[in-house]
Amino acid sequence: MAENHIPLDPTVRGGALKWIANEYYDLNGSHYDVLDELPSPLEFSRLIHISRPVLIKASEMPEIISLWTDEYLAERMEDRQISIAVTPTGRADAITRGHDGRLYFAEPHVEKMAMDAFLAKIAPDRPESNAVDKEVYYLQSQNGNMFTGRYFDLTSDPDPSEFAPLRADVPSEISWCSEALDRCPDAVNLWIGNSASVTSVHSDPYENIYSVIRGAKHFTLFPPTEGWCLLEHSYPHARYVRSQATSQLELIPSPPTTSEVRWSSVLDPSAAVFLPSEAHPIHITVHAGETLYLPAGWWHYVRQSEVTIAINHWYDMEGRGTAWVWLNLLRGLIDVPPGNGDEEQI
Amino acid sequence: MAENHIPLDPTVRGGALKWIANEYYDLNGSHYDVLDELPSPLEFSRLIHISRPVLIKASEMPEIISLWTDEYLAERMEDRQISIAVTPTGRADAITRGHDGRLYFAEPHVEKMAMDAFLAKIAPDRPESNAVDKEVYYLQSQNGNMFTGRYFDLTSDPDPSEFAPLRADVPSEISWCSEALDRCPDAVNLWIGNSASVTSVHSDPYENIYSVIRGAKHFTLFPPTEGWCLLEHSYPHARYVRSQATSQLELIPSPPTTSEVRWSSVLDPSAAVFLPSEAHPIHITVHAGETLYLPAGWWHYVRQSEVTIAINHWYDMEGRGTAWVWLNLLRGLIDVPPGNGDEEQI
Ligand SMILES: O=C(O)CCC(=O)C(=O)O
Ligand SMILES: O=C(O)CCC(=O)C(=O)O
Repeated sequence: MAENHIPLDPTVRGGALKWIANEYYDLNGSHYDVLDELPSPLEFSRLIHISRPVLIKASEMPEIISLWTDEYLAERMEDRQISIAVTPTGRADAITRGHDGRLYFAEPHVEKMAMDAFLAKIAPDRPESNAVDKEVYYLQSQNGNMFTGRYFDLTSDPDPSEFAPLRADVPSEISWCSEALDRCPDAVNLWIGNSASVTSVHSDPYENIYSVIRGAKHFTLFPPTEGWCLLEHSYPHARYVRSQATSQLELIPSPPTTSEVRWSSVLDPSAAVFLPSEAHPIHITVHAGETLYLPAGWWHYVRQSEVTIAINHWYDMEGRGTAWVWLNLLRGLIDVPPGNGDEEQI
Repeated sequence: MAENHIPLDPTVRGGALKWIANEYYDLNGSHYDVLDELPSPLEFSRLIHISRPVLIKASEMPEIISLWTDEYLAERMEDRQISIAVTPTGRADAITRGHDGRLYFAEPHVEKMAMDAFLAKIAPDRPESNAVDKEVYYLQSQNGNMFTGRYFDLTSDPDPSEFAPLRADVPSEISWCSEALDRCPDAVNLWIGNSASVTSVHSDPYENIYSVIRGAKHFTLFPPTEGWCLLEHSYPHARYVRSQATSQLELIPSPPTTSEVRWSSVLDPSAAVFLPSEAHPIHITVHAGETLYLPAGWWHYVRQSEVTIAINHWYDMEGRGTAWVWLNLLRGLIDVPPGNGDEEQI
C-alpha cells in the first residue's frame, strides 16, 4: 500500500481516526457471526461485503483432520527439505531488541530440514523439543508454500512446492470463496507450530480463509478502524543468522539501504492493559475442523497452545470500489514515528 | 444520517476530502459496467460490494413496456385520485428563489387528479400541456407509491397504494437484488413525467434498481467521494401552495421551527462548467427496457427528454460493516455553510 500520508498534521489525523473508530464501533460493536455450516457463494459474498470476522464450525477439508498424523506427514514428505523459520524467541517477523539495545523488525532464520526432524523439534513429548538451545521452530513460510497464484495460471510454468506430496490432500481453492470473489487464491499456506510460536499483530490486504486441521489457534482481532491503537513505528530491518562460530542465532541488522519496516510496537495486544481504551479486541479460538473468515485489512495476533496445524487460503481483496481506498485512508491517517527503542512494552 | 461533523476545521476537512476523492478516482476512473442480461444474485452481490453504477440492458418487467400505453394506464386506474407534484418550474425538491429574493429548498404542491387528466397534462401533443399557466406536473411521490416496506411485513396491515390496480403488473421485488441483499425492498416507486421535469442532484442511502418502462432517463452521477463538489448549503424550507385568490402556485416559507435542509447549490451538475475540476460526472442514459443499478450514496441528477415512465426499487443499504461509516464520514467531512442567496448559479 502506498505510503502517502493524508495532508493533515498528526493531531488532526488522530482526531479523525478516533471519530472513525468510534462510528464504526457504535455500529458494529464486537459482534462476529458464527455459522454451523460452510456458506454458499452468495452467503459468503454478503459476508465479504460486511467485512467482519466469521467463525465457521465446519471445514473445507474435513478428511485431513484425522489423516494428517505426524506419521502420515513424515511418511508422505520423506526426506524432502522444507523451510522452517527459526528464532530464539518464537517471534518471527516481530519487533526485537538487538544486542546494541536498538529495536529491529526481525525476520527469522530459515533452516531446511525434513518433516520428521521438524515435527520432532516441536513435539511436546519428544526430547528434541527440550533442547538446551531453546530455539523455536515454526513452519510459517507464507509464500504460497502449498499453492501460489501461478498454480492457477495455466499459461505459466507449474509452481513448485516444498509440500508437493501433500497437495493431493489440500483443496487448491475454496469454492464458495472463489465464486464469491470471482477469482482464484493468491496463495495457499501450511502452518505448523507449537505454543512457543507467536505471530505478532499485523494486517494483510487479503481475504483470508483460515482452516485449522489440528490443535487450536487463538486469534486476537481488531477492525481496520482500530489499527491506530496498535501504535505502529518504523523500525530498521534485521534477520537472524546462524553464526558459524557458536552456531547460535544472532540478530544481524540489514544494510542501511534496506527499507525500514512499519510495524506495531504492541507485543501482546491480547492484554487490554497495553492498548488505548478505544481498542476493542475480539478473541476467537478456532479449533480443529473449524474455519475463520478473516477479512482483508483486519489486524490479527495469533497464538496456539499446543501443536497446531492450519491451512489458509489468501485471496486478493477487491480493488475496485471503496474497500481499498478505505484501508488506504485508515493507513494514511496513522502517524508512524521512528521506533526509538523506548517503546514501553518491548 | 447524523449531522455530526468530524472534529476538524473546514480547510483541513477539505484537504481530506480532496485526498479521498483523488484516491478513489485514481482507482476507479469513470468506469461503469454494462451487462447484457440481468445478473444472478451472486453476480449482483459482487456488484453491490464494488458499489459502482451498472447499466443493465435488460428489464425485470419486460411485459409492461408494450402493455403500459396511456390508454391502458387510464383505463386501469379509472377515476382514482393520484398524487402529482406541481411546480411552476419543473423543479420539485430543489433550491428555488422566493419572492423575497431568498433561496429556499422548495417542495412541490401536491395535487390529486385522475390518471387520464395527469397524462393529458404531460403529453406533448395535447392542448393541456400548453396551458398558459405553464405549470409542470410530475408523478414522483417516491413514498413507496407502488409498494412500501409494509407490504412485505405480513404482520402489519396491508399497505394502501394509489396505484393498486397496477400492482399486478409490477414485481414487488427484484429477486436477484432481494437475494443479494437478503431483504425486501423498502419502497417501490412509479415515476411519470416529461422533459419539463428535472430531479435536482442528491443522494439516497438506498441501493436503487431503476427500471425504465417508456422513454429514456438521463442520469448524471457522482460517486459519494465527490459529494463535496456539489457545494451543499443549508436552506430554509418552503412549499408551493395553490393560492385561493389567483389559483397560481406561490412559494410559502415554512415556519422557522422547520429544520433547514442541506442541499446542493449546483442547479445543473451535468454542465462541467458549474463544478470544481475534481468532479467527474458520469453520464448514463437508461432507455425503455433497461435497468440502472444506482448504488447507495451515489449522487444523481435526473432528466428525461420525452414522456418517460420508470419504476424503481429502493433497498436499505447494508448497515453493518463499513459502508454506512464510509458515507457518514464523507458527509461529515463536508462543510455546509448557510445558503446566503448569492450562490452563483441560482
Ligand atoms: O497462524 C499464524 O500464526 C498467523 C496467521 C496469519 O498471520 C495469516 O493467516 O495471515
Ligand atoms: O427519476 C427521477 O426523476 C429521479 C429518480 C431518483 O432520484 C431516485 O430514483 O432516487
